[in-house]
Amino acid sequence: MSKTLEFWFEFASSYSYLSVMRVEPLAREAGVEVAWRPFLLGPVFLSLGWNDSPFNIYPPKGRYMWRDLARLAEGYGLPFQMPSRFPRSGLLAARVALLGTHEAWMGDFARAVMRANFAEDLDIAEPKVIRAILDGLGLPADVLLEAAGSEDNKRALKRQTAKAGELGLFGAPSFITADGELFWGNDRLEDALAWTVKHAEN
Amino acid sequence: MSKTLEFWFEFASSYSYLSVMRVEPLAREAGVEVAWRPFLLGPVFLSLGWNDSPFNIYPPKGRYMWRDLARLAEGYGLPFQMPSRFPRSGLLAARVALLGTHEAWMGDFARAVMRANFAEDLDIAEPKVIRAILDGLGLPADVLLEAAGSEDNKRALKRQTAKAGELGLFGAPSFITADGELFWGNDRLEDALAWTVKHAEN
Repeated sequence: MSKTLEFWFEFASSYSYLSVMRVEPLAREAGVEVAWRPFLLGPVFLSLGWNDSPFNIYPPKGRYMWRDLARLAEGYGLPFQMPSRFPRSGLLAARVALLGTHEAWMGDFARAVMRANFAEDLDIAEPKVIRAILDGLGLPADVLLEAAGSEDNKRALKRQTAKAGELGLFGAPSFITADGELFWGNDRLEDALAWTVKHAEN
Repeated sequence: MSKTLEFWFEFASSYSYLSVMRVEPLAREAGVEVAWRPFLLGPVFLSLGWNDSPFNIYPPKGRYMWRDLARLAEGYGLPFQMPSRFPRSGLLAARVALLGTHEAWMGDFARAVMRANFAEDLDIAEPKVIRAILDGLGLPADVLLEAAGSEDNKRALKRQTAKAGELGLFGAPSFITADGELFWGNDRLEDALAWTVKHAEN
């Protein structure tokens, strides 16, 4: 299938929440395959000189973001509760997600982690939270958590995160089309899908 | 008319270009009055620790912005040419615009300045460029340029810019509804209008 869209996201990222929840139905409707690309924003932000989320470094941006997020979630009909801690480390969830990139459970897992972080105020950095999510999906938590923590998998996530920087990403969510167009932000999800449909090879 | 939307913009700002070109027809259609609020981003950015446009400070953001702007302009059917210098000082244009806030020529003037900057690659910091725009609109350029440079008017723009910071603005364009909702970015123009219509007093 030539109609594929790379979906770069981070479990700690508030606007990634909105796109993780929305991407599969919209992509299905457009006839586009989602290529899941979990990565870590921390190293990308560090390369820009930020040692924290810009929403924390620049308080007016942060205050606005939470209000904007609440309004958007309401408009999309998505649950939202401001997390008591932000950002939470998405490291463990990203390592598990990397294992699921080509698995049928990827979307369900990603949505469950995002709901935990942004609708249930659960600490996704805690292994027990991720374990409960895997259990809830009927997945072999022990096997997956061990594989997630393997050196190979850790290196693979580092490579994926380094690639994000090489691709010019500076935030999440980001979308990259098969012909190399970058779209940044939940606001551009529909545009990225429309571009993919319009410019797909026949 | 209780349905009014404050439209905060800066002539140097690339995404303000898109909104300045779009706001009047969309507002008219929605039955909303536009309250023009020209201001200067420079002092606002300085208060956030940026001594230049963040699009220059963070090159990946800048590269993305120009591509995004070109795509959006094409989608809106707006002319676009990447300025050979960015950002250009919007100081003089903002001083003139402040005089026009309640005048019928405000929209025409704002669009002409934005077209000069982002479609014709003209230096809007140059008085002769602003003069030519005023002449082209059949406005008394001498009178307006003198009034624009008066101490009263300079102070008024400083106050307006200070107010932008007090209101929590951190970028442009920004929209503030009568009930105090802040919407940031050209992407939110339609949302700000819809909010205004939905929450207007009867």
